Amino acid sequence: YGGMGGWHANHAVKSDVVNLLGIYDIKKERSELAEKNGIKAYSSFQEVLDDKNIEIVTIATPNDIHKEQTIACLAAGKHVISEKPVTLSSDDLAEMIEAAEKYQRIFTVHQNRRWDIDYLAMKKVYDSSLIGDIFNIESRIHGSRGIPSDWRGMKEYGGGMMFDWGVHLIDQILQIYATEKIVSVYCEFDNITNKEVDDGFKLTLRFDNNARAYIEVGTYNFIPLPRFYIQGTKGTGIITDWREPCHIVECTHWHESEVIPVETAAGLTKTMAPRDEITTRSYDLEKPASDVHDFYRNICDTLEGKAAQFVTHKEMMRVMETMEAAFKSVEHKSVIYFD
Amino acid sequence: YGGMGGWHANHAVKSDVVNLLGIYDIKKERSELAEKNGIKAYSSFQEVLDDKNIEIVTIATPNDIHKEQTIACLAAGKHVISEKPVTLSSDDLAEMIEAAEKYQRIFTVHQNRRWDIDYLAMKKVYDSSLIGDIFNIESRIHGSRGIPSDWRGMKEYGGGMMFDWGVHLIDQILQIYATEKIVSVYCEFDNITNKEVDDGFKLTLRFDNNARAYIEVGTYNFIPLPRFYIQGTKGTGIITDWREPCHIVECTHWHESEVIPVETAAGLTKTMAPRDEITTRSYDLEKPASDVHDFYRNICDTLEGKAAQFVTHKEMMRVMETMEAAFKSVEHKSVIYFD
Repeated sequence: YGGMGGWHANHAVKSDVVNLLGIYDIKKERSELAEKNGIKAYSSFQEVLDDKNIEIVTIATPNDIHKEQTIACLAAGKHVISEKPVTLSSDDLAEMIEAAEKYQRIFTVHQNRRWDIDYLAMKKVYDSSLIGDIFNIESRIHGSRGIPSDWRGMKEYGGGMMFDWGVHLIDQILQIYATEKIVSVYCEFDNITNKEVDDGFKLTLRFDNNARAYIEVGTYNFIPLPRFYIQGTKGTGIITDWREPCHIVECTHWHESEVIPVETAAGLTKTMAPRDEITTRSYDLEKPASDVHDFYRNICDTLEGKAAQFVTHKEMMRVMETMEAAFKSVEHKSVIYFD
Repeated sequence: YGGMGGWHANHAVKSDVVNLLGIYDIKKERSELAEKNGIKAYSSFQEVLDDKNIEIVTIATPNDIHKEQTIACLAAGKHVISEKPVTLSSDDLAEMIEAAEKYQRIFTVHQNRRWDIDYLAMKKVYDSSLIGDIFNIESRIHGSRGIPSDWRGMKEYGGGMMFDWGVHLIDQILQIYATEKIVSVYCEFDNITNKEVDDGFKLTLRFDNNARAYIEVGTYNFIPLPRFYIQGTKGTGIITDWREPCHIVECTHWHESEVIPVETAAGLTKTMAPRDEITTRSYDLEKPASDVHDFYRNICDTLEGKAAQFVTHKEMMRVMETMEAAFKSVEHKSVIYFD
């Protein structure tokens, strides 16, 4: 009933598809807070497993114990939604998937950032032909508070920004470049405020259509760079902040009759002079609509056989393998070849 | 008497330290234009070499013939200023340096971008302790016209954006991180509008103080990203456009009493919430003063034994070796270890 645990409980209460039976938290003050809010607090994890009325368990605990708890829930006949990262290695994830298949239960991960409107706008630009063929997407999340001071800063609990924000941003990029293979992975970690785990990283993915994704997370960026930047053969798109619309500059005519050079202190440049409004067209895209409750709606539809699971095992595994390649790239200080 | 040749001629006319004796251009219409402008046009390169009144020759020709012309001028007793890139390989540069030593003449390269006020502001931030220890500098030049359609797009003449803008941006970064060794070089080339040479690139340099420089040139960026971005342990600096001042956000107090989470479509985040004005201080730096004529003033002072050459042989070689490592990184798709 902490950060994301509380988020799930609050959203379940507001939901039109699921009912909240209760929460379990190892911290006594959180159980008390839940009960004060009219929510049943289970007294042990075993009590949760034993309650036959519970159909779905959402696990929002430190990252290193998702696996053990997930498999216990699946074995007790519960469907399981794990918070991200679903676990810390592809081997562990394979065991979890195996358990889900063995016990015939739904097992998925809460990739809530698939409902972020900035991501949805970027995906729309990619899927449309608004700015031609996309060859570069840059996805940045910049904060300036360092890494959170709890278990998120500790390696043994699966801390670090790759497992925290990286898992979202990689999932988004793999959803956008959905049909492309990853050719190579190159990653650099930062350790500015924390030496034990990455408090930021810079990750380059190359896809087999020669397109590229660059993902960056930083927690010591007192001035944020734009959230998304996307380049196509016929224009560029930008989203400065995740609440802002996507701004597009389309190239309507490649050739210009006259180029006015831009003057700098120490020289002129025609190559880098900005284009005028005769050869380009600028506009904002309408912000996409989004409802994060669709996540639980999909789980319920999947349970009833009316839909396929929104975040699939294959997608979960692909994100995990990409993160593993990133860790390997950092360890070996080299480019890792993939797929 | 073309792009940069014309630039040198015009600046020499305005200069307080050098006199323009004349120009030589293989294109007849340019010679005619020069004469119309009251400038003597030599009829052959040999005539230039033979004129005993010429002390200094500035070479602004396609990149592949700088070496041959430089050595011919040095052998004829002229001091030589080559346009950038000084040549296409470190072996060629070594021969040029050897010739300068043999004939005891000044030989340097026109790194005019050392007078750009954006670069000077960034260097000031690095050299001061305004935002603590610097661990990341990002230097971007974004245009949207593709690569120029002349020899700059052809490999045999030394075309491509690495040799065009890269040589400036690398020189600037190596001037900023002046005392640090380069640990590794990683580069990716783009070929969006031109397949033969890079029409943009992304280059990461790691230095032995664990700091990093990222240099990017693009010619298909219809929305430019900021020119400079610099991160220190106590703040961040940004220069949006080369004519804009450097904006600084300093962190005055690391810890905050209360963090207001930022809401996005699909969740909250405290880690990525912006800071308030109680724990930070924002301001613009005054734009540095700059006079590109100092380049020729330094050459004259060097000639008179009153100063050391501003752009040294060692610096020229270091930039060339960095570019070679970048080309090697692209060829092998790998990280190249340096120094």
